[in-house]
Amino acid sequence: MIEKWHQLVSSRNPEGLNALLSDNVVLHSPVVHTPVQGKQMVSLYLHAAFHTFLTDSFTYVRELNSEFDHVLEFQAEIDGLIVNGVDMIRFDSNGQIVDFKVMVRPLKAMNLIHQKMGMMLEKLKPS
Amino acid sequence: MIEKWHQLVSSRNPEGLNALLSDNVVLHSPVVHTPVQGKQMVSLYLHAAFHTFLTDSFTYVRELNSEFDHVLEFQAEIDGLIVNGVDMIRFDSNGQIVDFKVMVRPLKAMNLIHQKMGMMLEKLKPS
Repeated sequence: MIEKWHQLVSSRNPEGLNALLSDNVVLHSPVVHTPVQGKQMVSLYLHAAFHTFLTDSFTYVRELNSEFDHVLEFQAEIDGLIVNGVDMIRFDSNGQIVDFKVMVRPLKAMNLIHQKMGMMLEKLKPS
Repeated sequence: MIEKWHQLVSSRNPEGLNALLSDNVVLHSPVVHTPVQGKQMVSLYLHAAFHTFLTDSFTYVRELNSEFDHVLEFQAEIDGLIVNGVDMIRFDSNGQIVDFKVMVRPLKAMNLIHQKMGMMLEKLKPS
């Protein structure tokens, strides 16, 4: 299950993302408390995240796995700033993602991500 | 190894913390990029964190374990704000903590923690 996520990230290509998301998937952003609900909105956010986070330097540096839960720690350089964070991904028994939580550090990186994700979401949003 | 950490947190009592830290332990704060180095400084930070984070409502809500690495997701209400985060703890083969990383979300919680940890460190700092 988590291998499919790794394939998407390695390819830097979010095609195939939708097939991996449960209809009722919930996303918890690093910045905002209120979760993002449902496949359509979560897909939009994850597409924006692919464009924002997945610079050439993006790499997973630590990974812990259990049956349904995975924690993937990443590091990336974005606009000259080191962004360190975790993707916390929960799958259901059908192999689809039901919960996706992201945290980032330090504060400067959180502010940069806040700003860049906002611009990217604006750009990707269906008009 | 991680059981000892859980005991400390459950007791809300940082005594016994120093015995759990390697001399060369490194702490990565959620707020600042530059790590905190060495047992004395890391102990000071973790004492401040005990006083800041461990309100009655503090609880671990998800935990992933491997041989030396542990990720403990927590949730706490602090000053009326929900603080969600992870403790990422690495032990050495002697059962001592060599690396301790904390991330928090959302942004409002990060700002609150930044402010409260600053005040607590000021208070606990040997004069």
